[in-house]
Amino acid sequence: MDLQDIGEFELIRRIRRQVKNSRQVLQGIGDDAAVLRHDKKSHLLLTTDALVENVHFRRDWSSPEQIGRKAVEVNVSDIAAMGGLPTAALVSLILPASTDPLFVERIYRGIRRRCRHYRIDLVGGNISRGKELSISITLLGRVERDRLCLRSGAGPDELVCVTGKLGKGQAGLMLCSSGDMDKDADKAGPFLRPRARLQEGRAIARFATSLIDISDGLVGELHRLMDASGVGFLIDAATLPLHPLTKLVDDDPRRLALFGGDELELLFTIRKKDLRRLKVRSTIIGRTTRERRISVQGWPGQEDARTVMDREGYDHFLRRPRSSRTRS
Amino acid sequence: MDLQDIGEFELIRRIRRQVKNSRQVLQGIGDDAAVLRHDKKSHLLLTTDALVENVHFRRDWSSPEQIGRKAVEVNVSDIAAMGGLPTAALVSLILPASTDPLFVERIYRGIRRRCRHYRIDLVGGNISRGKELSISITLLGRVERDRLCLRSGAGPDELVCVTGKLGKGQAGLMLCSSGDMDKDADKAGPFLRPRARLQEGRAIARFATSLIDISDGLVGELHRLMDASGVGFLIDAATLPLHPLTKLVDDDPRRLALFGGDELELLFTIRKKDLRRLKVRSTIIGRTTRERRISVQGWPGQEDARTVMDREGYDHFLRRPRSSRTRS
Repeated sequence: MDLQDIGEFELIRRIRRQVKNSRQVLQGIGDDAAVLRHDKKSHLLLTTDALVENVHFRRDWSSPEQIGRKAVEVNVSDIAAMGGLPTAALVSLILPASTDPLFVERIYRGIRRRCRHYRIDLVGGNISRGKELSISITLLGRVERDRLCLRSGAGPDELVCVTGKLGKGQAGLMLCSSGDMDKDADKAGPFLRPRARLQEGRAIARFATSLIDISDGLVGELHRLMDASGVGFLIDAATLPLHPLTKLVDDDPRRLALFGGDELELLFTIRKKDLRRLKVRSTIIGRTTRERRISVQGWPGQEDARTVMDREGYDHFLRRPRSSRTRS
Repeated sequence: MDLQDIGEFELIRRIRRQVKNSRQVLQGIGDDAAVLRHDKKSHLLLTTDALVENVHFRRDWSSPEQIGRKAVEVNVSDIAAMGGLPTAALVSLILPASTDPLFVERIYRGIRRRCRHYRIDLVGGNISRGKELSISITLLGRVERDRLCLRSGAGPDELVCVTGKLGKGQAGLMLCSSGDMDKDADKAGPFLRPRARLQEGRAIARFATSLIDISDGLVGELHRLMDASGVGFLIDAATLPLHPLTKLVDDDPRRLALFGGDELELLFTIRKKDLRRLKVRSTIIGRTTRERRISVQGWPGQEDARTVMDREGYDHFLRRPRSSRTRS
């Protein structure tokens, strides 16, 4: 048996079961960032995410500055998904000995620029030798106690919303994989130069009941919200905000929006009365249900059918194809 | 040009030059851990270190539990070298898709056990797919403001001391590389199952003027203290506390003690009057000098000669051999 049989999510579930933490930990493994008690006003946030060459980026697709920048953005997105602000970063690089030092300095330039933009202090890190280039960033952040928003707060009969347009990460990846980079580099921007929704996350967290970023695809993240909150979701496929890029690639745009990873949009649940107070552009894509199940309706041509999404959307390891059952 | 020409230390120096931080940062890149302002009593510490397969460990040498355990210890050692206590950990794994999930769970078992021992909460992390197995751990810690001990506080005419016996990490590595693992696995223990000097670090930090761990070899770490404190060092080779393991391998034990990496002992400077108050077993190996140079005297047979160590001890990338000049 290997990781392709059980997948990343199952592995994390097994690891998580074994861990017992002290009272300083408000939220451990199982949210976008860990939450630690800090003082009367705020909590500490701690998160880490890695980009591995030829898995998350390719040197012939991205400039080193873009790689560094993306490594920052994916981590800032995790802090945004808690309603927090990032404050300090550690950078851990694994580099082949044959790497050009200038290439590394350019990765750091990308990291440094985005850190400056977000007012994140770059306080340390580590460089190790290895066969494969990877960049792990750890972010420390803060969130006001009354603003913190976890994955676990959704109740039944709430609205399900997303920021921005969906499917652009996966569509950009497909453009890069199949296409002519000279021609498509600009179009693939949302994949190569994603932006975290930090200010949006700050605003949403004040009103939302649960909040998560969509880095592993909408259906995968809905499963995580379901596991944490104990509610189900009914999504209306007709309302999914599709990014124009999804129409450029040879695939069903709705499928990209549902399953596509590499997306830094935010997914949240909110009570109807609170949505009016939220001054963030977002799209209602469905509602929460008491029944613990993720269903999608509104497919063109079969408006009455509900498709139950019983597989998680995006798993770095799983070898088996994503399955789904249709019932009416 | 590649990293083998400039080395890890030069690369870090170049990166560090570019970074400007805010007032929350008391110590950024350039110590064992970063130090951030926290409250009136204590500072936050933040550090990260990675183990890469076939660079820092091999599966035929170590059990997965030992690998996990070592990943914790090398990070705890960085917190110890600030005088602090670790509080929370993130674990970032890069795993080949063919990895047996049980192997990963056993790595985590090793991590969990050491975290429990040190009362570190295991609060999150990340799992990515990659070709090469690596384990990055990030530790958050705390240190009382008056206990914090940096690399930069050494003055002239102070004593230079180390905890424990030296050379055992490198000697253990050499035993593993050349030997029969069935026979030598026990002997190579200090390499395979190193222990951080956490309690010693806590005690030393109260009195020492500078403090660092010896993970990259004594001479390399003396260079770091020299760069940070602006003093030089005169080391007496005859006083180096040699671990018995160094005599088992086919090399000069003093050379192993001076240049051997993979060591979690602590190196510190202390005023003569304060050494008496320190209740930690340690060995005086030399003294600090106004002259910014690292010299070693007391080689057997050439007691009057001083060898200037102008190369850093241990660099993961450098291809050129370590050079040294001898003058009398």
